[in-house]
Amino acid sequence: MSKLMDRTPRQDGYRMPGEFETHTQTWMLWPERTDNWRLGAKPAQAVFTAVAKAIAQFEPVTMGVSAGQFLNARFQLPEHVRVVEMSYNDSWIRDCGPTFVINDHSGVRGVDWDFNAWGGLEGGLYFPWDQDDLVPQKVLNIERKDRYKAPLVLEGGSIHVDGEGTLMVTEECLLNANRNPQLSREEIENYLKEYLNVEKIIWLGRGVYNDETNGHVDNLCCFLRPSEVALTWTDDQNDPQYEISLDAFQRLSQAIDARGRRLIVHKIHQPDPILITAEESGGVDSVDGTMPRLEGDRMAASYINFLMVNGGAIVPVFNDPHDEIALTKLQELLPERRVVGVYAREILLGGGNIHCITQQQPRG
Amino acid sequence: MSKLMDRTPRQDGYRMPGEFETHTQTWMLWPERTDNWRLGAKPAQAVFTAVAKAIAQFEPVTMGVSAGQFLNARFQLPEHVRVVEMSYNDSWIRDCGPTFVINDHSGVRGVDWDFNAWGGLEGGLYFPWDQDDLVPQKVLNIERKDRYKAPLVLEGGSIHVDGEGTLMVTEECLLNANRNPQLSREEIENYLKEYLNVEKIIWLGRGVYNDETNGHVDNLCCFLRPSEVALTWTDDQNDPQYEISLDAFQRLSQAIDARGRRLIVHKIHQPDPILITAEESGGVDSVDGTMPRLEGDRMAASYINFLMVNGGAIVPVFNDPHDEIALTKLQELLPERRVVGVYAREILLGGGNIHCITQQQPRG
Repeated sequence: MSKLMDRTPRQDGYRMPGEFETHTQTWMLWPERTDNWRLGAKPAQAVFTAVAKAIAQFEPVTMGVSAGQFLNARFQLPEHVRVVEMSYNDSWIRDCGPTFVINDHSGVRGVDWDFNAWGGLEGGLYFPWDQDDLVPQKVLNIERKDRYKAPLVLEGGSIHVDGEGTLMVTEECLLNANRNPQLSREEIENYLKEYLNVEKIIWLGRGVYNDETNGHVDNLCCFLRPSEVALTWTDDQNDPQYEISLDAFQRLSQAIDARGRRLIVHKIHQPDPILITAEESGGVDSVDGTMPRLEGDRMAASYINFLMVNGGAIVPVFNDPHDEIALTKLQELLPERRVVGVYAREILLGGGNIHCITQQQPRG
Repeated sequence: MSKLMDRTPRQDGYRMPGEFETHTQTWMLWPERTDNWRLGAKPAQAVFTAVAKAIAQFEPVTMGVSAGQFLNARFQLPEHVRVVEMSYNDSWIRDCGPTFVINDHSGVRGVDWDFNAWGGLEGGLYFPWDQDDLVPQKVLNIERKDRYKAPLVLEGGSIHVDGEGTLMVTEECLLNANRNPQLSREEIENYLKEYLNVEKIIWLGRGVYNDETNGHVDNLCCFLRPSEVALTWTDDQNDPQYEISLDAFQRLSQAIDARGRRLIVHKIHQPDPILITAEESGGVDSVDGTMPRLEGDRMAASYINFLMVNGGAIVPVFNDPHDEIALTKLQELLPERRVVGVYAREILLGGGNIHCITQQQPRG
């Protein structure tokens, strides 16, 4: 159990499934660092609890929690959410957690990427990140799943697959000099093909405007199902996001997936620009080495940062006029799922959203 | 999953099985506190690893490990031992861990006793014990098992059952004023009957001489199977243990179990007195509030402090002339098991032995 494998998922017949495939459960990590989450992380903890409850309507949830917060989290969360002790540097298990891969014989294993807090010493968001980097081992030990150690820096939020051989990434992130400067684009592609077992990689350009992850694809665009994607959008040509989304739309419109199909691209209009308030900024501890949360900074708000769960989709909303439009459109696009909105401004304030704070464990 | 039940195991048809019944796995906690384990706990870690390996020949093992020791433990332990992060104050999961109960329909739940480090502020062995007291919740969350909270102080090492309605305890421990001074013997009996689902309680007197647990039964006497027990023994009438073992023998010889049977009592001769050396004492940090390990102190060595596992028994040995006699006799008494000796002086130096550092999780 939880052996370290010396081959690759491709060599062993394992592949990363699409998020829309069936899950065993979803993993989360409890927020607590006061230099990222305002007011002692209490508002964020309330929203993480709301997200966990929303997911738990559809599938089991396990929350990793530090020793110091164990009793508080156990008290805040409903009994049917499993709470396990785990250390971490922050709560972004999409990025620091394992990427699960499956085979055709009920096998489930995990890929353990190198993690450097979105850029390491070249623009990373905090220091250190040693405990984040152990999260995959800890998750896989608890689940008694074998582990592949992939020899490159990568976050789970920077990849989306269709489960049928196609991977979608951004150049801004995967080719960033603060991730794997020693590797060429071709070498990175080869690792992705080996560890996710894909044949075709669709390269988008930049991620969402002002996204501190260096443009993770999971805030920009996602697969709804094979050959069908949703893209964050704006009609405002003066918004810096316009050019980014237009470029992505054009690349997606020309893309051919691993099975030779063209993609259907659905535009989901973004919320109006959301800025950090003085009150919000004032609630965060100022710590040298951690990215500050400054009044007036625009946050990278996007409805695309949602999580698909068994029979559902948990979508961030912002108390914005576009909320209803996005929820209605996603519900139309996902008739097989129940779309649930969760007010997620507190997660956005921490630098991500619902997809960033969750990691699905697929059924084998 | 991991619900807090508001009834008792007896009310719900759950019982504590005998240790000799089938296990799913055995739990352990990695030693590390330097005010109890000499030389930075490195010798103890080596012996805990040997114990884990011995058990893992027979059934799965999960080791709880602090964040700071996670990588070291993962490196020391073989891959087939599951390592999960867990905080604790020391490594005695027999005493701070859950007591598992089962029903006749594959159900498994846990009893979570109050824990006060063997006496709280009245002779307890260290302070604080807050993390130890959370171990049952954490184990049961990981395993997704429901939990009964028992309203009394009790350690797992102070109870042994035959799985057929009989419980064996010592007066020295269970009636000690530093455990449940507010409860009468009858009230304690009633709680034990409710939470372990037993009908008959066999009271022994004192535990092993100089046992710092206030006389835990698991160092003195254990069930080999229903109606058959093994008792630590000495033929030396000048040894203070003689009187203790003789008293226990007499009580056991007169006892009738829950099914109306008399007990067969097998004597296992103890090792010769084992004293802490100057070198051993000198390797332990001196900390106010933690019981010191002083040169010349006699340790409570007993072969009875062994663990039964699926098809095996893991028995402490001490490089003593009685080792071979004990192993041979236990092997004769347990023909259905393979008896494995592990040199365990380092565990004894910490104040217990193999049974104290393990907690079996029975199959439902």
